Amino acid sequence: MTFVKNAWYVAGWSDEFGHRLHPVRILGEDLVMYRASTGEVAALKDRCPHKLLPLSRGRLIDDRIECGYHGTTFGADGRCTRIPGQPRIPPTARVRAFPVHERHDIVWVWMGDPEKADASAVFDLPQMSDPAWDSHRGDALHIRSGYINVAENLVDPAHVTYVHPTTLGSAAHAAVPVEYETDGDPILAYRWIRDAPPIPLFARLGLFEGNVDRWQYFHLHLPSTAVIDFGSADADPESTGDRRREGVRIFALHFLTPVAANHTIDRWMHIRNTRIGDEEFARALDESFRVAFAEDKNILEAVQIEEEKPRDDEFRLQLAIDPACIAYRARIDELAEAERLP
Amino acid sequence: MTFVKNAWYVAGWSDEFGHRLHPVRILGEDLVMYRASTGEVAALKDRCPHKLLPLSRGRLIDDRIECGYHGTTFGADGRCTRIPGQPRIPPTARVRAFPVHERHDIVWVWMGDPEKADASAVFDLPQMSDPAWDSHRGDALHIRSGYINVAENLVDPAHVTYVHPTTLGSAAHAAVPVEYETDGDPILAYRWIRDAPPIPLFARLGLFEGNVDRWQYFHLHLPSTAVIDFGSADADPESTGDRRREGVRIFALHFLTPVAANHTIDRWMHIRNTRIGDEEFARALDESFRVAFAEDKNILEAVQIEEEKPRDDEFRLQLAIDPACIAYRARIDELAEAERLP
Amino acid sequence: MTFVKNAWYVAGWSDEFGHRLHPVRILGEDLVMYRASTGEVAALKDRCPHKLLPLSRGRLIDDRIECGYHGTTFGADGRCTRIPGQPRIPPTARVRAFPVHERHDIVWVWMGDPEKADASAVFDLPQMSDPAWDSHRGDALHIRSGYINVAENLVDPAHVTYVHPTTLGSAAHAAVPVEYETDGDPILAYRWIRDAPPIPLFARLGLFEGNVDRWQYFHLHLPSTAVIDFGSADADPESTGDRRREGVRIFALHFLTPVAANHTIDRWMHIRNTRIGDEEFARALDESFRVAFAEDKNILEAVQIEEEKPRDDEFRLQLAIDPACIAYRARIDELAEAERLP
Repeated sequence: MTFVKNAWYVAGWSDEFGHRLHPVRILGEDLVMYRASTGEVAALKDRCPHKLLPLSRGRLIDDRIECGYHGTTFGADGRCTRIPGQPRIPPTARVRAFPVHERHDIVWVWMGDPEKADASAVFDLPQMSDPAWDSHRGDALHIRSGYINVAENLVDPAHVTYVHPTTLGSAAHAAVPVEYETDGDPILAYRWIRDAPPIPLFARLGLFEGNVDRWQYFHLHLPSTAVIDFGSADADPESTGDRRREGVRIFALHFLTPVAANHTIDRWMHIRNTRIGDEEFARALDESFRVAFAEDKNILEAVQIEEEKPRDDEFRLQLAIDPACIAYRARIDELAEAERLP
Repeated sequence: MTFVKNAWYVAGWSDEFGHRLHPVRILGEDLVMYRASTGEVAALKDRCPHKLLPLSRGRLIDDRIECGYHGTTFGADGRCTRIPGQPRIPPTARVRAFPVHERHDIVWVWMGDPEKADASAVFDLPQMSDPAWDSHRGDALHIRSGYINVAENLVDPAHVTYVHPTTLGSAAHAAVPVEYETDGDPILAYRWIRDAPPIPLFARLGLFEGNVDRWQYFHLHLPSTAVIDFGSADADPESTGDRRREGVRIFALHFLTPVAANHTIDRWMHIRNTRIGDEEFARALDESFRVAFAEDKNILEAVQIEEEKPRDDEFRLQLAIDPACIAYRARIDELAEAERLP
Repeated sequence: MTFVKNAWYVAGWSDEFGHRLHPVRILGEDLVMYRASTGEVAALKDRCPHKLLPLSRGRLIDDRIECGYHGTTFGADGRCTRIPGQPRIPPTARVRAFPVHERHDIVWVWMGDPEKADASAVFDLPQMSDPAWDSHRGDALHIRSGYINVAENLVDPAHVTYVHPTTLGSAAHAAVPVEYETDGDPILAYRWIRDAPPIPLFARLGLFEGNVDRWQYFHLHLPSTAVIDFGSADADPESTGDRRREGVRIFALHFLTPVAANHTIDRWMHIRNTRIGDEEFARALDESFRVAFAEDKNILEAVQIEEEKPRDDEFRLQLAIDPACIAYRARIDELAEAERLP
């Protein structure tokens, strides 16, 4: 599995972290995290360099971790501050500390070279801090599939018709062409379906009476955050333009944490411009998303099992719907390759 | 595990196949099978070449499979017939199709070079279509052991005494010598036990009052079908000849499907010349066979575990009872080797 | 995992062996053991050299094992004594036999070159046969960790404070220095804590009213038997000497059986010079030990999981408390290396 290390990854929602030891696995690496009494979240390699006991098996004393085997103690910066029975602490006695940044109630950790960690690069979306929009947090969905498979699925409008026929898709418009912008970050795939019935989800929620112009904009921020901007406006046969400011608009955010080569956590939330403050409406959205994302999980885990099988033939079919996926894999490879250079 | 590819293997009893997608694993390869509306059974590689989703996760629409991820559609011959959102279908867009042949309510699939598939080579036994004989289908027994171990067991009269003392064997005659014919196909091992009590199974069923002349003919058809011809006739001290046409004769058929290196399905049935139409008798035979085959399964799975362990010493003891097994392994190796040649 | 083969290992308590086939795994090797009618315990490689069926799946007939597949029979010395259907038994028809020695109700097996097996080298402790001492057998604790990790833990006084605070340790004296004697066999680590409160275990049992002088002597006999001599005497501010003959003294014995690279059985017992014949007291000791050893198991299994992970950095911190552990690993490496020499 190709991992990009010089990047911010979501370690959890803010309320997952308190003044207690919390083990977290990201990019196959085990971290122990805790919120110090200053309010800042610390992240250390979860392994005492003495006998290799995970530090998360020890105790948090004040803002330091005491190893559960021999009492060796480390601070939030990874430096050893105490070795019982030994007055001198060698300078090599430390564990790796990872930069952490918290924004919009999400805790991010930087997995690569700490020198390159830039907090201003942590993901943001203006609507997350705009009172005209309503943010609602969903779940942390565990998917037994590599993050690249999961991310591809989130920049792929074409699958919606086949995987989510009862919630987000509609078979009638499978052939509507998709546009791509693959040079920037995020990578973008989008399409407009004009003068068509609303998707099953919107129809069920009673948002529209007649036909709509609807859109899907799939933004995939490297390496693994997706923003799906979708919505509908009452059909306007006169218009062929961008009508996203006119109708019901929802951002579905997916923060993918690559746990290991075959395991990804998808923490998802949604932000909407309709029914502000209506919790019942938000929960109805959640329920539809849960159905849809379980359908994705089902597909993605089957694909992972298939990928792990030894293959005799390596032929892979590429389709006209694939440009965003192909660009994404290439970009991930470039980023990983750049990290390997001296 | 050495697999012979250019051969017909049993995919299932005929009634296992209907107008629905049915995944089947043979020689470690995953197939999706279905009965088309023509009545013919189709077998395709169970993996969409686009994103690798198993086709069995999709839908059967008419006689074509629509992939569950993006709707790419394949016919029974493996050719792609539709790619949503893309008018042109490249000629490379196809999945492998496997020849299938159905005979005597058994579905066979050819796992090797389709050019070499010859339906006339599918296994047959004259008694299967002879009304003077009664055919009765048994079970599909899953054995967690390689097919070579299972097949050896089916050309090995010597184990019967030790593994099946309460059903098929009798300790009193362990030392009766076995004859072998190992040059042909099937490989044959057989012996006659003259003027002896009937085996426990026949005694329990009340088939004989006094001593019998009894026989065991183990035929192993390459690569993995066994026909065990066994039976008894009232003892005739005057005769030393072949008395198989005179008594109660049963063919126990074992169709071995090598699922993977350590997993074999043994579909078994029996054909008899006595108590024609007597279902109760057939079920009594079933019950005894189930006891016996569970004893084999027990042994064969323990052997498999042992084979998978790293071994420091490679010494294997060969015994006087081994000629058929030795010949069988050599023949399998020859067949597999011939397939590797250009 | 580095295993020392030329050594005696505990196969079980004496009463684990009767006139029945008993499979045992030691150093990753599978043995079948049984007590012959002579009273002697036999140990053979648990694998028939014919078809590899474990001999433990066969039958014990008199003092010989009949293989459950074809009846091939082996005696306690490993020689084949019968091959059904074959008059001549080739001299190669044998399985490996392992030397066995029984002492103090413990069955030991020699895993290396039988020529080097010396029964006088089997572990002994004079107190085991001294009526002034009371021996009490504990459990066979299965630990999913390599024996080297487990053994290190048994020559490591420093962990007691952190792992066993409610039973054997006391945080107040974590910094009392440890003495080491690492050149001999056993390797020794020990310390005295003078004029201090008794450990929680002794306090709970009401053994002392005031302060005590207490000791911990950790003896690690190569390759994997530990004797922990610990106890207390009423504090005597005048004395700085060895007071082990004056107070309550307990030997905690740990017989480690390396089952496989990641699996160790710790058979433990204790021998005491107080409350002779008081079974209730012995059971109270058992209960405290069970709590403490479960704490060790918890730590050691977490360390094993960590060791099995691929590691990007190999830095290991060595502490002032480590001399006995370091010496132990070096000695094991030396012994194993010596066995590899011609």
